[in-house]
Amino acid sequence: MANSEDNGVANAGEAIAVEPVVTDLPGHQLVLGADEPLRLASGQLLGPFTVAYQTYGTLNAEKSNAILVCHALTGDQYVSEPHPVTGRAGWWSGVVGAGLTIDTDDYFVICVNVLGGCMGTAGPKDINPKTGTPFGLDFPVITITDMVAAQKRVVEHLGIEKLFAVIGGSMGAMQTLEWASRYPEMVFCAIPIAGAARHSAQNIAFHEVGRQAIMADPSWHGGDYYSQDTGPRRGLSVARMAAHITYLSDSALHTKFGRNLQDRQAITFGFDADFQIESYLRHQGSTFVERFDANSYLYITRAMDYFDMAAEYGDNLPAAFKNSQVRFCLVSFTSDWLFPTSESRQIVYALNAVAASVSFVEIETESGHDAFLLEEPEFHRILAGFLRGAAEQRGLNGKAATP
Amino acid sequence: MANSEDNGVANAGEAIAVEPVVTDLPGHQLVLGADEPLRLASGQLLGPFTVAYQTYGTLNAEKSNAILVCHALTGDQYVSEPHPVTGRAGWWSGVVGAGLTIDTDDYFVICVNVLGGCMGTAGPKDINPKTGTPFGLDFPVITITDMVAAQKRVVEHLGIEKLFAVIGGSMGAMQTLEWASRYPEMVFCAIPIAGAARHSAQNIAFHEVGRQAIMADPSWHGGDYYSQDTGPRRGLSVARMAAHITYLSDSALHTKFGRNLQDRQAITFGFDADFQIESYLRHQGSTFVERFDANSYLYITRAMDYFDMAAEYGDNLPAAFKNSQVRFCLVSFTSDWLFPTSESRQIVYALNAVAASVSFVEIETESGHDAFLLEEPEFHRILAGFLRGAAEQRGLNGKAATP
Repeated sequence: MANSEDNGVANAGEAIAVEPVVTDLPGHQLVLGADEPLRLASGQLLGPFTVAYQTYGTLNAEKSNAILVCHALTGDQYVSEPHPVTGRAGWWSGVVGAGLTIDTDDYFVICVNVLGGCMGTAGPKDINPKTGTPFGLDFPVITITDMVAAQKRVVEHLGIEKLFAVIGGSMGAMQTLEWASRYPEMVFCAIPIAGAARHSAQNIAFHEVGRQAIMADPSWHGGDYYSQDTGPRRGLSVARMAAHITYLSDSALHTKFGRNLQDRQAITFGFDADFQIESYLRHQGSTFVERFDANSYLYITRAMDYFDMAAEYGDNLPAAFKNSQVRFCLVSFTSDWLFPTSESRQIVYALNAVAASVSFVEIETESGHDAFLLEEPEFHRILAGFLRGAAEQRGLNGKAATP
Repeated sequence: MANSEDNGVANAGEAIAVEPVVTDLPGHQLVLGADEPLRLASGQLLGPFTVAYQTYGTLNAEKSNAILVCHALTGDQYVSEPHPVTGRAGWWSGVVGAGLTIDTDDYFVICVNVLGGCMGTAGPKDINPKTGTPFGLDFPVITITDMVAAQKRVVEHLGIEKLFAVIGGSMGAMQTLEWASRYPEMVFCAIPIAGAARHSAQNIAFHEVGRQAIMADPSWHGGDYYSQDTGPRRGLSVARMAAHITYLSDSALHTKFGRNLQDRQAITFGFDADFQIESYLRHQGSTFVERFDANSYLYITRAMDYFDMAAEYGDNLPAAFKNSQVRFCLVSFTSDWLFPTSESRQIVYALNAVAASVSFVEIETESGHDAFLLEEPEFHRILAGFLRGAAEQRGLNGKAATP
């Protein structure tokens, strides 16, 4: 953030280089911006920097069957394979795969770890070659626009002129909207799920609580914890717990946990996890810290907070989609209170105002914001149907085009 | 919590004594339980222990005009006067006072700092005479039932056989319901506002996040921070920030703050409080720690989590109000998502099932859970009307009984 030579961060005009990230993680890595640095929304230049991505399926000869999947805040590029750190199934392994809704027998699926992330793409834990130490908070603050600009370079590197589809839930929906607005000529159809065109005050508030929890942890050390024995594990865990509540609906929590006790017959009159919901949240917190970098959490939440598509159009959201030829399919979930249907509806109004092609479905479910990650048959039906129709329009063969 | 002699906590059967709390705070203090200890819901005995309370108005000769106001989680007995620590107006100074909705020219208003609190009533920061040091987590875990049992002794001490009304919002509503259920012969009318008959899974979850934030702070020292230079100020601040979001509605946050920036023209691409909502939350957190004890926060949130009126009646809530002669008036607020209308409605159904006298009003407001603390004209009208009617039935003279 600071821009002086003292801390080894480049002056304005000079590109911020990130030492190539070397990992033994599965998937692909690409060094971008060596010749032409990426101009960030902050005005800073970034390059060279590493981007990690994963692909599933095969790109056809016409390079017309690519689907870019954009991951959410704490997701990554391991969409449809066991996670290399946790060993758990990929976050969309129920959606993306051979014979599944996004059928990898038909489509070439790409997912890029976002800029600022911690799974092989450049982020605050990587080395600043000027100092030989991790950036920490000297890493430039990035935005959704920056994430998408980096993804565009990956798509170009793969020789793809036009993505068949861009799709994502939550922060992935923000990226999807950004793609459709900023690079409409490169997007045939866009599917923003459980998203918004700007981050709400309540959502900024929850993110701020998470950031303060991390920053309040003395082991955070102002972001310079990488050389310490431990990072801000407890702070990050509290941040995750608070966020996790917002991903679920009140009624889902009631149905799943209610006031059920955890491995005991009666309350213990103490501060142990008497209730299942307490035990569940503590588990969510403690497992998250094993796979996520606390500074990345700061950076990515900040990128979401800063997201406001209409801002650069004088608060006129339709202008962000003027003359768009992109085919949109928006999906929201009734019990999602983090990105409620009203947010998707604002986008639909804006798309209608510019006569864009738009489908919109609100799906009845108790599962809250996380519904897009779960087994939701109606959601999968909607998604399959829209993709099938779009594939026909795009002239794609394969099962996807066969009703 | 532990029950061995080793840590100076009384064995079962032996009462836990709390050294009398000495403060120069305004209001009254009373040492209770010296002769007859209070049996807590945990089975432990407590006594002697101090209870602090405040009163407004004058008790009439018949002792029939007393209204017990029950405070919420972070409230206290300073209902209608400047707070002795912060100097800010009392939390219900817009409702309780001469000529106001709860008119102290007519009524004698009592408010007791809850057991486990930190404004003069015995709590974890007070001295364990067996060790000569503060209890910390050796203070017994208390429940809403225990808080009300202590209040009952104060009411008896004042010579009041029957309270004209018990009233409270949020945790105050829990106490109000407990009073009506446990001591119906002592309550003429009960007004639980924005309450519930049991704490929901989502609400337990938010409390657990707050507790974990406190406990994650190394300055908490397992609860033994009183002899240290500082307590878990940052953890308590994060807990307060998280809780504060739940007190407001999404739309109120949008209306009040939206994405407005704080004292700046543009985002700074950093982690300062760019947005007003961030600045506001940080202020809420930092001011709270000046007036509240972190361990009290643990104890009182736990008491709310444990609240489940139907539990001792085999999950049959109506049984908690069987044959009740108490006149009930329940109030909920449309935008309250912490204690939504559905929770109040469950209580109304239970009261209807036992043919109790019950009024129920859901008030249309954008103010969220905190609406009961704010200037809500319709709420004040409802409250005034119900009190006027009840006063007539009770044969009370004075302005309150005059239409």
